[in-house]
Amino acid sequence: MENFTFYSPTYFVFGKDTENEAGAYVKKFGGSKVLIHYGGGSVVRSGLLDRIKASLDKEGIGYVELGGVKPNPRSGLVYEGIELARKEKVDFVLAVGGGSTIDSSKGIAAGTLYDGDFWELYQRGWSEKALPIGTVLTIAAAGSEGSGDSVVTKEEGMLKRATHGDVLRPKFSIMNPALTQTLPPYQTACGITDIMAHLYERYITSTKDVEVTDRLIEALLMTMIHEAPRVMKDPDNYEARANIMWAGMMAHNNSVGVGRSQDWLSHDIEHELSALYDCAHGAGLAVVMPNVHRYNLKHDVMRFAKAAVRIWGVPMDFDDPESTALEGIARFRSFLTSIGMPANFKELGAKEEDIEKLADVACNGDTRPGYLEGFVKLTQKDIENIYRMCCE
Amino acid sequence: MENFTFYSPTYFVFGKDTENEAGAYVKKFGGSKVLIHYGGGSVVRSGLLDRIKASLDKEGIGYVELGGVKPNPRSGLVYEGIELARKEKVDFVLAVGGGSTIDSSKGIAAGTLYDGDFWELYQRGWSEKALPIGTVLTIAAAGSEGSGDSVVTKEEGMLKRATHGDVLRPKFSIMNPALTQTLPPYQTACGITDIMAHLYERYITSTKDVEVTDRLIEALLMTMIHEAPRVMKDPDNYEARANIMWAGMMAHNNSVGVGRSQDWLSHDIEHELSALYDCAHGAGLAVVMPNVHRYNLKHDVMRFAKAAVRIWGVPMDFDDPESTALEGIARFRSFLTSIGMPANFKELGAKEEDIEKLADVACNGDTRPGYLEGFVKLTQKDIENIYRMCCE
Repeated sequence: MENFTFYSPTYFVFGKDTENEAGAYVKKFGGSKVLIHYGGGSVVRSGLLDRIKASLDKEGIGYVELGGVKPNPRSGLVYEGIELARKEKVDFVLAVGGGSTIDSSKGIAAGTLYDGDFWELYQRGWSEKALPIGTVLTIAAAGSEGSGDSVVTKEEGMLKRATHGDVLRPKFSIMNPALTQTLPPYQTACGITDIMAHLYERYITSTKDVEVTDRLIEALLMTMIHEAPRVMKDPDNYEARANIMWAGMMAHNNSVGVGRSQDWLSHDIEHELSALYDCAHGAGLAVVMPNVHRYNLKHDVMRFAKAAVRIWGVPMDFDDPESTALEGIARFRSFLTSIGMPANFKELGAKEEDIEKLADVACNGDTRPGYLEGFVKLTQKDIENIYRMCCE
Repeated sequence: MENFTFYSPTYFVFGKDTENEAGAYVKKFGGSKVLIHYGGGSVVRSGLLDRIKASLDKEGIGYVELGGVKPNPRSGLVYEGIELARKEKVDFVLAVGGGSTIDSSKGIAAGTLYDGDFWELYQRGWSEKALPIGTVLTIAAAGSEGSGDSVVTKEEGMLKRATHGDVLRPKFSIMNPALTQTLPPYQTACGITDIMAHLYERYITSTKDVEVTDRLIEALLMTMIHEAPRVMKDPDNYEARANIMWAGMMAHNNSVGVGRSQDWLSHDIEHELSALYDCAHGAGLAVVMPNVHRYNLKHDVMRFAKAAVRIWGVPMDFDDPESTALEGIARFRSFLTSIGMPANFKELGAKEEDIEKLADVACNGDTRPGYLEGFVKLTQKDIENIYRMCCE
């Protein structure tokens, strides 16, 4: 196991009706004037925003609002939020929504305290100061409610980049599974895929002898395999939603990923798709992941065989571990299509003729060094090959 | 799933040589004068204490020392520590040792800021103010390095009681698996048993539909089953020690136990044994646990069958789930004896003739209500029955 530090100081408030405690938690963590940041109309229409405002009013906490976050959140709105936060002298950012809203909020929280263009924080990849952040989660997916990460897309060049830092970990996160019951099935499935991707990116490692984190990741993936069909069949299944929601947080606060190298090639390769086509991140991952795994399989057949046996219940073929590994990847792909995820470029809305451009941006865009590195090192040619496999 | 809050703000610093960073982390969390609290001579003889003092000196942090913590830490030393902390105006308590030392440190940290007899905090079961605490862990067992709990024994009446509170969660915990390599095999095995007990106490639940935490607990138990024989065979196996150490923290910071009822009857029933006979807590648990599980089996046969199948790999007998459940409990007991744990009262050094007294104190001692309640409610008679099963 590699040396590591782990720090997850977020206060998680989980369960029914917990959104009504938002004001009390803002107060507990020192907020007196809040920027409420959210996405579209559903937060307004459902009455959620009103309930949160009422809880802030009750504690005598002032607020301003900024809605309009889109999936794959854009830098334009972050700039707007920073300007508003500075002008209104807010001391707390409250995200009400899913990963896009939380990531946009983190950009605003860090950018407000940064002397310079906030995009530099996403170019260099780390942040060291930010306004305190709280979240009221409405989608189980990104894990941003418990992570110190934020991903934002810059409109110029459609570059999707990330920044990291302990200061970006929310002070509190309110997680009411009932709030996710009204999500359209496609978004629910995209969230499930994103959670599973966060687990696979950690599972695919070159570090040996990490049984504890292997087992924990397998546990969360098996949970998703058990709960996803239940929630797809019955969107109002609170219990299935609750299991998925806690799994989504645990998948990404990194308690199950410590002390081991991680992959993240599928994320890097997907980001260019959602940046260019504005498709859902989860849907892009569904297309990319099985192909990245197949492409990199030979680098460590036994790791993928372990995943197949332990996670997917594939019987081990001791004479031909590779067939076991491939069967695990095939079952993963079938599972994703069974919950309504696209299987290839066409179903995703991506275009084969863009492959060279996509691979070029993935390798050379912005501050990229000309290749991608994770479980293996991928050249531009490798990435083109993977995108081509995604067309099948 | 039940509503819950979860908060684990400890900064974990894990890996080789990390004890040399103790001073830097005390400084990071605002300490300027430290009470270093530790147990016996091994911390001194190994040079660990000197390395920690050097790291404090390097940061210009002052300190006083208090050694002498015994397993099953006593209130006498806590009173002494409180007096010393007040006299010397320390603002940080640094525990160097295992669960006993950390728990004693927590008693001192909370007692120093409490107007009254610190034992009241253990009678009522909660603490709301404490000096900040840091730990340098030398035994993987109690999980106190990541928990908000402390257990202390009062000499008068040999009462073993607990207090809880977020303020008791360490600000940082330094976890170097190499520091556990010099432990005698018996203590290593006691630690392993304690970790498995923390997992079983959470696994045995009446809450339905908690797949995510079921799977996470199973993952950690399977990790222990895999790693324990490796470390018993080769005490210098750093990797096995590392997997056990992280599992021990995860077993007890409660991220795998949220949203579900928990048991803790085995702990309650064991505490009277280690209080009266001063045996190791882990050894007492090894004797008690399989019998508590057998005694309570009929309350929910399928839960114990699930444990048998998923954790111990027992084939499910669909015609007779109870036999599957019993086989799982039998395997657990065999596993514990295989690592050198006692199987019954005699091997533990407990006496059959004390059973009535033990059950009386468990039910009626101090502030107890006349029964024990966990997965089931146990009368004094039930507890006598369980202690009697422990004689076999």
